[in-house]
Amino acid sequence: MPEIELLWSVDDVIEYSKRWALTHGLLCLVPNECDQATFVPYTLFPSCLSQKEFEFIWNIQADYNLLYTKISQNDDILKKALESVIPIDDFVARLWNIYLSCKTNRQQPIQLDIYRNDYMYDTQANDKSQTKMRQIEFNTISSAFAGLTGIISQLHKAIFRYSIRNCTIRDIELNSQQQESSDHYVNFMVNNAVENAAKAIAKAYELYNNPESCILFVILPNERNVCDQGALYDAIQKQIPNVKIYLKTFKELVNEIQLNQNNNLCFKNSKEEISIVYYRAGYIPDHYFDESIWNMRKTIEQSNAIKCPTVHSQLAGCKIVQEYLTRPNILESFISNSHTVEKIRSTFAPMFTFDTEDVDYKKNIALLLSKPDNYVLKPQREGGGNNVFGQDILQLLSDKKVQLSNYIAMEKIVPPVSRNCLIKPNGKHLINAHVINEIGIYGTT
Amino acid sequence: MPEIELLWSVDDVIEYSKRWALTHGLLCLVPNECDQATFVPYTLFPSCLSQKEFEFIWNIQADYNLLYTKISQNDDILKKALESVIPIDDFVARLWNIYLSCKTNRQQPIQLDIYRNDYMYDTQANDKSQTKMRQIEFNTISSAFAGLTGIISQLHKAIFRYSIRNCTIRDIELNSQQQESSDHYVNFMVNNAVENAAKAIAKAYELYNNPESCILFVILPNERNVCDQGALYDAIQKQIPNVKIYLKTFKELVNEIQLNQNNNLCFKNSKEEISIVYYRAGYIPDHYFDESIWNMRKTIEQSNAIKCPTVHSQLAGCKIVQEYLTRPNILESFISNSHTVEKIRSTFAPMFTFDTEDVDYKKNIALLLSKPDNYVLKPQREGGGNNVFGQDILQLLSDKKVQLSNYIAMEKIVPPVSRNCLIKPNGKHLINAHVINEIGIYGTT
Repeated sequence: MPEIELLWSVDDVIEYSKRWALTHGLLCLVPNECDQATFVPYTLFPSCLSQKEFEFIWNIQADYNLLYTKISQNDDILKKALESVIPIDDFVARLWNIYLSCKTNRQQPIQLDIYRNDYMYDTQANDKSQTKMRQIEFNTISSAFAGLTGIISQLHKAIFRYSIRNCTIRDIELNSQQQESSDHYVNFMVNNAVENAAKAIAKAYELYNNPESCILFVILPNERNVCDQGALYDAIQKQIPNVKIYLKTFKELVNEIQLNQNNNLCFKNSKEEISIVYYRAGYIPDHYFDESIWNMRKTIEQSNAIKCPTVHSQLAGCKIVQEYLTRPNILESFISNSHTVEKIRSTFAPMFTFDTEDVDYKKNIALLLSKPDNYVLKPQREGGGNNVFGQDILQLLSDKKVQLSNYIAMEKIVPPVSRNCLIKPNGKHLINAHVINEIGIYGTT
Repeated sequence: MPEIELLWSVDDVIEYSKRWALTHGLLCLVPNECDQATFVPYTLFPSCLSQKEFEFIWNIQADYNLLYTKISQNDDILKKALESVIPIDDFVARLWNIYLSCKTNRQQPIQLDIYRNDYMYDTQANDKSQTKMRQIEFNTISSAFAGLTGIISQLHKAIFRYSIRNCTIRDIELNSQQQESSDHYVNFMVNNAVENAAKAIAKAYELYNNPESCILFVILPNERNVCDQGALYDAIQKQIPNVKIYLKTFKELVNEIQLNQNNNLCFKNSKEEISIVYYRAGYIPDHYFDESIWNMRKTIEQSNAIKCPTVHSQLAGCKIVQEYLTRPNILESFISNSHTVEKIRSTFAPMFTFDTEDVDYKKNIALLLSKPDNYVLKPQREGGGNNVFGQDILQLLSDKKVQLSNYIAMEKIVPPVSRNCLIKPNGKHLINAHVINEIGIYGTT
């Protein structure tokens, strides 16, 4: 991006952005306060990414979507990928058991997924690689922030339009022959993530084929991210004006919904039928804080309702599956086009597990010992502890009590550092902060 | 309006409306908290007014605008109207003195006014009257809520569209031959108040003819009504994309602005010229809490900047002027068309002052004594105390220490009582509240 010249003082831009955030719903609720909101932390200016890299990860997303849908529907692969984790991770094991108990009499063939594929630009990536973007994780449940990122994108455009000298905004189409950003034009990628998520939900609603049915968001108790969810709510309402959308916690659902004799998910009192269950909860063990919630998850899974996601689609998003896909010939078993395989593989950071029977086991340990700063160890368990870096890796390797097989090693990504202003509530802003960026590409199937 | 049938529970409608309020900027800041907002109190459903009455007050607004502009520009009338108040009201006296000291070398012939004319429907109004709408007050400074009422109107439409059975919204044009609201159609008046206010400001900006100049909002310290002001800010920015708009308190301005050698109002540091001064402060004595603020007001008044409003336009909005206009032959001196005079007069509630030389003085006192419940006594001073009702009027009349000449008597308006849900922050809502309505028609000259 070219150098920019501010027409206003930075303080004025910050004040402008805060007022804009309040008037356009870039907000979250304040903890422990009723009906009070504050803006979500945001950067004052957008982050840059070359159009070429953006288009690369954008263009492979459809293949990624298909890949993960196939994985979720492939018993055999899911089982192989998860078999090392199920014995050590009660959370994955319970989801797996729900999957097993529901799969024989699965009522609902329609699968709805809203994914978010997260990447970082890796300055250390081999120049011969097709891309320098490296996948961080692939989210298959509760892919948040489609709503707020769209709003932040509008804020960034407003800041550029008004506060920067001689700056013209260009909304760019992907894969077109447009010019790079220049001194006078700044290209903004159009962000339609929330509209596309709503379209996917509307399509599933249409396929369910009961115009009297309602949509259910399963949310967390004391949910604070209400404007992000509200933006999706509004976008769905635009697509399906007459649908009623309920926002309920698991605990509320325990008392309020049940299966009817036709296996439809219904509210007990009103008998309203639920066609779509969209989860914004249930992705970490803490959300299942008592047995009734596990039972509720199972009830929903057994029902005719279209789940976003199903239990098996959620399982496909496990970290261990991400590692499993890096193994030889796995991608090829799902994707016949070798160019597509190559492209997807080019986004993988090198990863390995610690299976003592693996031929590379000793080589991998040696790698870690010699270059601990180049790796990050991630617990295989979902929501199961913190990542381990650098010298802490050496300590972990020397600790006889640690089960190395509980970890996945991933080559550390070194993103470029840029400068930005970080705006936080309560007047806490950092005018000249060093920031690194992660980008999420949304996809639906 | 026809009876409505809710598709959702009232609690669900309330939850929906709160989320909508957060995501669409129906907010104000929380006192004594930094960067925290909550929604402004609102009714869950719109209030009804017959299309005929609405069109009546809408159609006479242009004449009202012209009338008040003429009053503000008529020395003689202003002086006559205000002469009873100036000796007893230091606030009005100081404004009057600024007016006198500036009028001889007035630099800026362009006058910009954004008015709000407030009415109530009077159930006691004579059936032979052209309208049952009675004017409460005519605001000539800081006419607030053009922004928020537009947003509330959108909220009400969303509630009707989604939560009410078989309800179709119809945005209606005024003075058209459209049908009344019926079982299946609900007519909503289009609310463009904030866009029209912005257009007036943009027109004044164009006439000032300096595209490098900026616009100044004079705001209160710790202003909480930021989303209302923000909506006007955004609307101006849409009209004039390259203009910089500053929001400053009087106290900040004391240090930051001055007149240059050409009598232009400029920021001391940046030398930026201010073309428009839009007041959202300065309408009550408390806002002038030290002498430097009075001096600043005078500096602005002397400058070439276009003031919204000028001091004389602010003075035209005094309560005593409202009473003055009810006197015989005053309206006629401004308006030649007798039909227009009749229409405007038909919106006046009967009023009188307590001038002992007035031929009706004794009759008026007798009226008050016999029917105190039919009147309200308003202090003539601006921002100068509370209105007096019913039995308190009798007490006031018998109190020898009270200067009756400090009051205006106005026949009490008896608005219809309707039911609505009042939504307030912190979970304080009234599901079945008795409400009375006041309606404001905005106008600009």
